[in-house]
Amino acid sequence: MNIFSNIIDSKDETFETLLDSKNVKIERIVSDAHVSPKDFWYDQDEDEWVIVLQGEAVIGFDNQESVRLGVGDYLHIKAHKKHRVEWTSEEEKTVWLAVHISV
Amino acid sequence: MNIFSNIIDSKDETFETLLDSKNVKIERIVSDAHVSPKDFWYDQDEDEWVIVLQGEAVIGFDNQESVRLGVGDYLHIKAHKKHRVEWTSEEEKTVWLAVHISV
Repeated sequence: MNIFSNIIDSKDETFETLLDSKNVKIERIVSDAHVSPKDFWYDQDEDEWVIVLQGEAVIGFDNQESVRLGVGDYLHIKAHKKHRVEWTSEEEKTVWLAVHISV
Repeated sequence: MNIFSNIIDSKDETFETLLDSKNVKIERIVSDAHVSPKDFWYDQDEDEWVIVLQGEAVIGFDNQESVRLGVGDYLHIKAHKKHRVEWTSEEEKTVWLAVHISV
């Protein structure tokens, strides 16, 4: 199986589970110029480790910081660290690999 | 941090821990035409989920099957599924992302 295969056009971000075990879920996320809804914050019970494998994105945090992620950039988002997707590339689809880890 | 940064020349495969938590370890592995020693088998207590992000590799299993992995190809290797690295690219370094999961 290939992380870049079977990417479909979608009006919403797509989330696909690649592995689901007791403590860990590995997911492919595909964004196509999508951003989180205005004033929406992810506030997750799990740690998340994420890497961008295609495209580009900006993640914002509730302390007003933000981080731009290009291909190969990875980030560890601790549980309950509020964050949102502020921007994803309009030039190509952005492919993320996300590892959700129970804490 | 970027998965493709700070790759050094090494006569051995290099293993770097990117995240280490109770149930999960995320690791970058860099191979440079390295292969597992003759008759060596990995026999791990954890599940391993692995993806090739640069380069190319062949993993062999003790049932004589093998699988070629190019960029973006991923594989779930269950705990105690004996495996070895049979070949990695001689053209460029092979960069793997490995997620080790306690079972």
